[in-house]
Amino acid sequence: MPTFKIFFLGTASAIPTNDRGLSCTAIQYENELEIFDCGEGAQRAALEMGLPLSKECSIFITHMHGDHVVGLLGLLQTMSMHRRERPLRVFGPKLVIPFIALNQKMLNFGLTYEVIAKAVRRGTVYDSKTSGFRVLAERSEHSTLSYSYIFEQKERPGRFNTKEALRLGVPEGPLWSKLQKGAPVKSPITGRMVRPGQVLGPPRAGVRVGISGDTRPSSKLEAFFKGCEVIIFDSTYSDAHETNARENMHTTAREAATLAKNAGAKQLILTHFSSRYRTVGVLVKQAREVFPNTIAAQDRMIYDVAASFPSKP
Amino acid sequence: MPTFKIFFLGTASAIPTNDRGLSCTAIQYENELEIFDCGEGAQRAALEMGLPLSKECSIFITHMHGDHVVGLLGLLQTMSMHRRERPLRVFGPKLVIPFIALNQKMLNFGLTYEVIAKAVRRGTVYDSKTSGFRVLAERSEHSTLSYSYIFEQKERPGRFNTKEALRLGVPEGPLWSKLQKGAPVKSPITGRMVRPGQVLGPPRAGVRVGISGDTRPSSKLEAFFKGCEVIIFDSTYSDAHETNARENMHTTAREAATLAKNAGAKQLILTHFSSRYRTVGVLVKQAREVFPNTIAAQDRMIYDVAASFPSKP
Repeated sequence: MPTFKIFFLGTASAIPTNDRGLSCTAIQYENELEIFDCGEGAQRAALEMGLPLSKECSIFITHMHGDHVVGLLGLLQTMSMHRRERPLRVFGPKLVIPFIALNQKMLNFGLTYEVIAKAVRRGTVYDSKTSGFRVLAERSEHSTLSYSYIFEQKERPGRFNTKEALRLGVPEGPLWSKLQKGAPVKSPITGRMVRPGQVLGPPRAGVRVGISGDTRPSSKLEAFFKGCEVIIFDSTYSDAHETNARENMHTTAREAATLAKNAGAKQLILTHFSSRYRTVGVLVKQAREVFPNTIAAQDRMIYDVAASFPSKP
Repeated sequence: MPTFKIFFLGTASAIPTNDRGLSCTAIQYENELEIFDCGEGAQRAALEMGLPLSKECSIFITHMHGDHVVGLLGLLQTMSMHRRERPLRVFGPKLVIPFIALNQKMLNFGLTYEVIAKAVRRGTVYDSKTSGFRVLAERSEHSTLSYSYIFEQKERPGRFNTKEALRLGVPEGPLWSKLQKGAPVKSPITGRMVRPGQVLGPPRAGVRVGISGDTRPSSKLEAFFKGCEVIIFDSTYSDAHETNARENMHTTAREAATLAKNAGAKQLILTHFSSRYRTVGVLVKQAREVFPNTIAAQDRMIYDVAASFPSKP
């Protein structure tokens, strides 16, 4: 399993607190970095956590509220200070395009790299050419145009059975690599053809991570997140503030847990907590009553997906 | 002496570090708050330091670079979340007006209070009606239109000599207040007139705090800061990077000290440090060779002006 980690850079809603910065979550997959939302403080958290800001990178904005997008301005400039050369892709509601362009003009900053900003549409938003993943989008339900995303590791070839390869007369080296890539080879020892299916296990399905952004729970999102191993979900409120959740188009911890359960998730990570909660123990408790495998995100937390789902066939 | 404190909310240049956020300095004077520059992270630092965000407040932007102004967007919204009602004044280069207006439109946020944004000109920028101070501006020398500011406490009446008042037959009460405000009163005991000059010491000059923003040192700024007790100055570089200071239109610690010495300051506070310096001890040392009363700002530092200059006549 390649490197596959989730970095929590900011886990507060609306207003930062002493412990929590504004929304930002990053996924490092092999050498590529995908950033979901970019609230104020994202660049500082990224520097503190040592994220590779000059590597292949895309940014996905869920919606154009300040606490999810203002940090983009500083992050763009800091990437430039770090002499980034690779183009940076930014996806989001179409307003993200003038947001970048107008602020770049008003704040008069040049960049050492190209920014490719695109409006998101439902479906596949980004298909990585260099790493084995894609990012999908679906509309969510918030007070402004908003999207949820899925980071989807692509299906990988089955495990390579080295013993069987040797038994069939294929020595370690370029021939193994050919077989792993799905091509038949001729054994230099037996002179017989060996097919990939003889030495490869069944293809391994990718692991999927769902990221809700700000939203009410919905049957559409539940369907979208079906089959996600990990779901990171808006958990702004506890049961006591269910009315606020409805009025402000957010989700309670319990509602997030219900959606995760119905979607068949293996792990729910609550985030985007209202600053009214000094600790979020009550929210975790309420969620666990519905879906036991719940944890609360906190700033600087790293969730190792590769270590958590090592043996997916 | 009324409350008169300087809060350092961000002391890094360009890129934040683990220890330093982007430029922001605030002065609390009695019940009024003046904020100088508003780099990313300002709202979080303000909340952590407990600054009174719903009180009378003005914001002064030195120049329109992202690391000095991006934090304004989050701060405006957080003040609104805190149900601010008083108007907020924002002064800066004229681009600050569309910067607020266009971002407010793109990020679609309403505010619970009025923002009065104005272009700065040299001279008196703001004259407080409720507290005894004014803020002055002068052009500084940076790579874009930029200003330095002085926070100037107004002259206050001399000390009231209570013993002398009693001796002259003026009892404690409304008559004392009249005398303190500069009006003559008639003694109810002696029947004679008592003039303010008989019971008041000489007027007490106000304390002045100079804030450079990003700039090269200049004779114009030296003249502007003449008579400032406290100077907070751009100290991006050490002697070793003097060339960078010239090229990037910043100041070395030693140059800041030379200006402070020539301006007759009592206290120099270095700030806006390049992220290349893990510690700024060398910069303080180089400055002290010229101007001994030098300290380095650090994030969350509070400098009590009232306590430092209690006995100014």
